Amino acid sequence: MNASDLGEFGLIERLAHISARTSRPGLVLGIGDDAAVWRFGDEYLLATTDTMVEGVHFLPDIAFWCDIGWKALAVNLSDVAAMGGEPLFALVTLALSPSTGVEAVDQLYAGLTQCAEQYHVSVAGGDIVSAPNPAITIALIGRAQTRDGAPLLLRRDAARSGDAIAVTGTLGDSAAGLRRLREGANLSDALVRAHLRPVPHVALAAEAARLGITCAIDVSDGLLQDIGHICEMSGVGARIRASSIALSEELRRAYPDEALELACTGGEDYQLVLVGAADRIALLHRENGALTVIGEVVAGDRHVALLDDAGLEMPLEAAGWDHLRAR
Amino acid sequence: MNASDLGEFGLIERLAHISARTSRPGLVLGIGDDAAVWRFGDEYLLATTDTMVEGVHFLPDIAFWCDIGWKALAVNLSDVAAMGGEPLFALVTLALSPSTGVEAVDQLYAGLTQCAEQYHVSVAGGDIVSAPNPAITIALIGRAQTRDGAPLLLRRDAARSGDAIAVTGTLGDSAAGLRRLREGANLSDALVRAHLRPVPHVALAAEAARLGITCAIDVSDGLLQDIGHICEMSGVGARIRASSIALSEELRRAYPDEALELACTGGEDYQLVLVGAADRIALLHRENGALTVIGEVVAGDRHVALLDDAGLEMPLEAAGWDHLRAR
Repeated sequence: MNASDLGEFGLIERLAHISARTSRPGLVLGIGDDAAVWRFGDEYLLATTDTMVEGVHFLPDIAFWCDIGWKALAVNLSDVAAMGGEPLFALVTLALSPSTGVEAVDQLYAGLTQCAEQYHVSVAGGDIVSAPNPAITIALIGRAQTRDGAPLLLRRDAARSGDAIAVTGTLGDSAAGLRRLREGANLSDALVRAHLRPVPHVALAAEAARLGITCAIDVSDGLLQDIGHICEMSGVGARIRASSIALSEELRRAYPDEALELACTGGEDYQLVLVGAADRIALLHRENGALTVIGEVVAGDRHVALLDDAGLEMPLEAAGWDHLRAR
Repeated sequence: MNASDLGEFGLIERLAHISARTSRPGLVLGIGDDAAVWRFGDEYLLATTDTMVEGVHFLPDIAFWCDIGWKALAVNLSDVAAMGGEPLFALVTLALSPSTGVEAVDQLYAGLTQCAEQYHVSVAGGDIVSAPNPAITIALIGRAQTRDGAPLLLRRDAARSGDAIAVTGTLGDSAAGLRRLREGANLSDALVRAHLRPVPHVALAAEAARLGITCAIDVSDGLLQDIGHICEMSGVGARIRASSIALSEELRRAYPDEALELACTGGEDYQLVLVGAADRIALLHRENGALTVIGEVVAGDRHVALLDDAGLEMPLEAAGWDHLRAR
């Protein structure tokens, strides 16, 4: 049996067993959420890591290296945001093939620096190795906000029946942008920008945690699949109204027949799904805007139901994005 | 110009510029030492990362995957040791090709778990990605010991003229073991074990820091090159007595004519170079054993001189190990 037969989630489950076996008292949350949480003195550390591999996560002939540098950090920032935390510093590992041009490295560093400066993250260390296939891995360390000594965390396992489900921004743009890139679209195309330069919602998530919201995930695998992760971890179900999902004008125009499917299953949007009491979600929306309520949490069977205007379940498959399975 | 023309250290220097540009108040030590140091509340965090790439850092046809799992964590532990700190938790990133066998992954996890348990490290998170070329990246977070609120660090820039230079264990065994592996040696061979299962000196290093020693590096690039890093960072020179360098019986027997060269320039020994006042080095040796004084720090020109019994400089080139330059 090969790794691809198990898939990403099967392999992560195996890693979770190790995490459980090696767990020490400091570990508050291990594998299974957007970032690990570690109690450190009176504070709570957040730690996450994400990798982008050439040919898998980016194609250097159609993406600029500066965008790759930006995105490599942005996706980690999105993980810290999905915990409601404040990013602090990053370790950057570059795997470069001997033929990688120095200009490419400098561009990658430039995009990375731009993102680091914008989000007040310090690049504190890293590693550079030779490899047949270029890749960039970033580990990001942050801190949780606290109140009266307790961490204010946005967790995947904190959804409760009756909670509202809200999402930032519009969905499906990144997957559409990737498709347009492959079709030769210009880098100034709005969908292409959404794919290459995702914007992590760090400030909004921190505000959500301060307002008492306790459940979130960022949309990396696809909206329905990521809501499914929350349902799995929280032991609940979800009902999503298809007509409530915010779609951008650009998405509707570019792929009118597939816009909803892209919004439901396209990966790498890095929007935030926030789950909590309806009044708190409404308060966050009033203070920060740009939130759309798309459904609610129901008791039961960990199933994510996509509903049409008549309240009937739609057959759209919640396939989403599994980084290892062959597609 | 390609990355290989700049070499590993040229690229790290470019990364150091970013680190300086994005530096925030919490950053105590950035790129340039064995681990980054970050002030966090009343404590000091250590953070380091190392990658092993198939075909570059390991050959899966001659190394067992469990050894690769062990070593991937051990080399990070060695970095935390070289700062005098206590390791806490690790993030593990696996890049797997779709054809990697699940058994290989399980073996890798087993070796990793064994190392994590032995050194009381928690595997707190990670990432799994598909890649044409397998690799494992670990980010390790630790804490510095403190006294009266100040961190007890072993730094590269703290060598002073007159300090003694001491090393743990024997040197050159790992490079010899790699050569023997390539020649088809048995995995039970002592030199081969030294290459596949390096033993990080975490406890000894922590004791050194408590005894007031403030300067160290671990031997990853090669003894003379790593002492050269200390000289660069501290603005001093070093005189090393060739006849004092501890060589194992196995190394002398396997490569009698090249034993000294392997000990001076072979990489990946993960022994510790400790630099400090002679009386403190002697005290550490009395309490813990297994230290050999091999030379002393001198004022001046950042040059590492290898001396024969007559005190004359030997021509052995301090080439060491640069992970990116073509050899």
